Amino acid sequence: MTPIYLTPGPTALHPKIEQLASEALRTGICSISHRSKDFEAIYRTTATALRDLMNVPDSHNIFFLGSAHEAMERLIQGCVKESSFHFVNGAFSKRFFDIATECGKSALKAELPLGEGFNLDIYEIPQAAEMICLTHNETSTGVWLKEEQINNLKRRYPDRLIAVDIVSSAPYARINYQYVDAAFFSVQKLFGLPAGLGVLIANARCIDRAALIEASGLEIGSYHNLLHLKNFADTFQTPATPNVLGIYLLGGVSRELVAAGGADALRAGIDQRSRMLVDFLERSEHYAPAVSDPEFRSRTVITIKVNGEVDRCRRVIQDHGLHVGSGYGELRKSQIRIANFSMHTDRDYERLLEALSAASR
Amino acid sequence: MTPIYLTPGPTALHPKIEQLASEALRTGICSISHRSKDFEAIYRTTATALRDLMNVPDSHNIFFLGSAHEAMERLIQGCVKESSFHFVNGAFSKRFFDIATECGKSALKAELPLGEGFNLDIYEIPQAAEMICLTHNETSTGVWLKEEQINNLKRRYPDRLIAVDIVSSAPYARINYQYVDAAFFSVQKLFGLPAGLGVLIANARCIDRAALIEASGLEIGSYHNLLHLKNFADTFQTPATPNVLGIYLLGGVSRELVAAGGADALRAGIDQRSRMLVDFLERSEHYAPAVSDPEFRSRTVITIKVNGEVDRCRRVIQDHGLHVGSGYGELRKSQIRIANFSMHTDRDYERLLEALSAASR
Repeated sequence: MTPIYLTPGPTALHPKIEQLASEALRTGICSISHRSKDFEAIYRTTATALRDLMNVPDSHNIFFLGSAHEAMERLIQGCVKESSFHFVNGAFSKRFFDIATECGKSALKAELPLGEGFNLDIYEIPQAAEMICLTHNETSTGVWLKEEQINNLKRRYPDRLIAVDIVSSAPYARINYQYVDAAFFSVQKLFGLPAGLGVLIANARCIDRAALIEASGLEIGSYHNLLHLKNFADTFQTPATPNVLGIYLLGGVSRELVAAGGADALRAGIDQRSRMLVDFLERSEHYAPAVSDPEFRSRTVITIKVNGEVDRCRRVIQDHGLHVGSGYGELRKSQIRIANFSMHTDRDYERLLEALSAASR
Repeated sequence: MTPIYLTPGPTALHPKIEQLASEALRTGICSISHRSKDFEAIYRTTATALRDLMNVPDSHNIFFLGSAHEAMERLIQGCVKESSFHFVNGAFSKRFFDIATECGKSALKAELPLGEGFNLDIYEIPQAAEMICLTHNETSTGVWLKEEQINNLKRRYPDRLIAVDIVSSAPYARINYQYVDAAFFSVQKLFGLPAGLGVLIANARCIDRAALIEASGLEIGSYHNLLHLKNFADTFQTPATPNVLGIYLLGGVSRELVAAGGADALRAGIDQRSRMLVDFLERSEHYAPAVSDPEFRSRTVITIKVNGEVDRCRRVIQDHGLHVGSGYGELRKSQIRIANFSMHTDRDYERLLEALSAASR
């Protein structure tokens, strides 16, 4: 039996991928010029499907990059002259902070221990910070932010840019683009695509800021800086040859998700499976949700504290035909991570509970 | 009938791609973690196949990036403190120069009109230039460099780094890595892969230089800087989630090319088709090779000067079931471009000659 990937990304492919990929190979999608009308149509229809699915208004551009890491770098280069502010409580929020530092910015941060969540409402943002960098869903620890608190930040600091990493929560995350200047994700998480494509959503304030910073004589990156991305996106093109196949697949999966009821239907399925798993964990003596405060517990990446031998636990689960993620970094000694994405099913989760039960015996 | 893509990239897929892609989807390649032993094995075997095919010694690392453009940027950031030197005679050599400028370097250049080739032996390189940037095959004009003159440059300037763009000539290009510190290409050209992956080959001198520049307090890029690439490559990993499918396909196609006789067999086929086409052009009154000097005329991207209406010519060729490239930029009014890559066949070229004949009537 083919194993089921419940890993937090790369993960199981969306069931439509095989058909879409063979369609792409058959119809020459991978051979067309990225300067052709045919490519522009692919860019346009994928962007439209993403707007439908994720409620992205026309005020925001949709750019295609190599990865979410690249989105962090291009945002920092283009939007931050001197200082950004980061909420750090795991490996990926720390990565955003590190990228800002490596780009020569004076990056500031608020920090919490792994597994704890930020109550954004109580934080004051330093005057110097031009962009507030948030990680909606910290893939390393399974902690997420409350979207309404992101909006509050913008209400409290309307003059700052707000950038949100939604790598492992898009399109579940209820991002209100009225309050968010930029958001980005990669496709190998909830969308269930092969890795190798990042998506950056950014409004005119980000672009204007890049123009200002460039005019001041600072570097904002080269071929993929926000100004070049914007210029090419205006005619549905990209500065360099992009991952055309990935863009095509993303459009196809997004349309599929819209047809299946959109983000609300996707959220209902994820909520239901999350409840199923958390109820089990709370009744168990062998396991517990690793994030103790339910308010901050992610529903798309669920971390489990294992009382007992973690390696043995993962082995037993694997014997049941399921791949789950290890805890991130040092946490691999005490935790496992379970993805809850668009392609995962209630049946997958029933099998997971059986496997977890078996592993606790 | 499915059209044949003789475009200079993206282009026709290598005939093995469909099988390799369906293998990848079936066996879960796209679902495995990029931190797993399984991924390390894919990285390792792809790198080994590339070394076999392209004669890359162990002195040089093999890194995977998003595109060749990214390779230019990471090399400039990592290897150039103040000044690089560029030989510019087309859009892509100019892009390398522009990227250096946008990265804040004082980029210097020698320049020739479009369609002319550099006799590298007669140029003096300014003292200030730390890296000499070469475009082995200028995809926009179909002009290439002589590999032996690249080696001479290194003999004359052993203290400078030599970086060579081999985007549309790898693995045909006879690069002698004894004389070349860095080279890079993208996979949608001679290898016939879907776009979305760049390969950077770089030796320890490049890495050491990046360490030196970073230590001096300058930025060398963030997550994909040469130091991070090197650290991760040492265990066959990448700093961010890479295009795993692309790396897998590249390994498969490279092994296929090795099995079919390696770079020599590939060169023989390309040389034969190039002769076939150039002989035809030289006998024709309607066409001529756009690069008049045979010494500098690329065999992998052949540009044709059309006497008469270029648009009509391309239309007639298309009616014969062939897609050819337009001339680049302004040259689209007088030229067409023909790719001569690993997946193209003598039969494709016979059909091309028939179509060119028909278009000249």
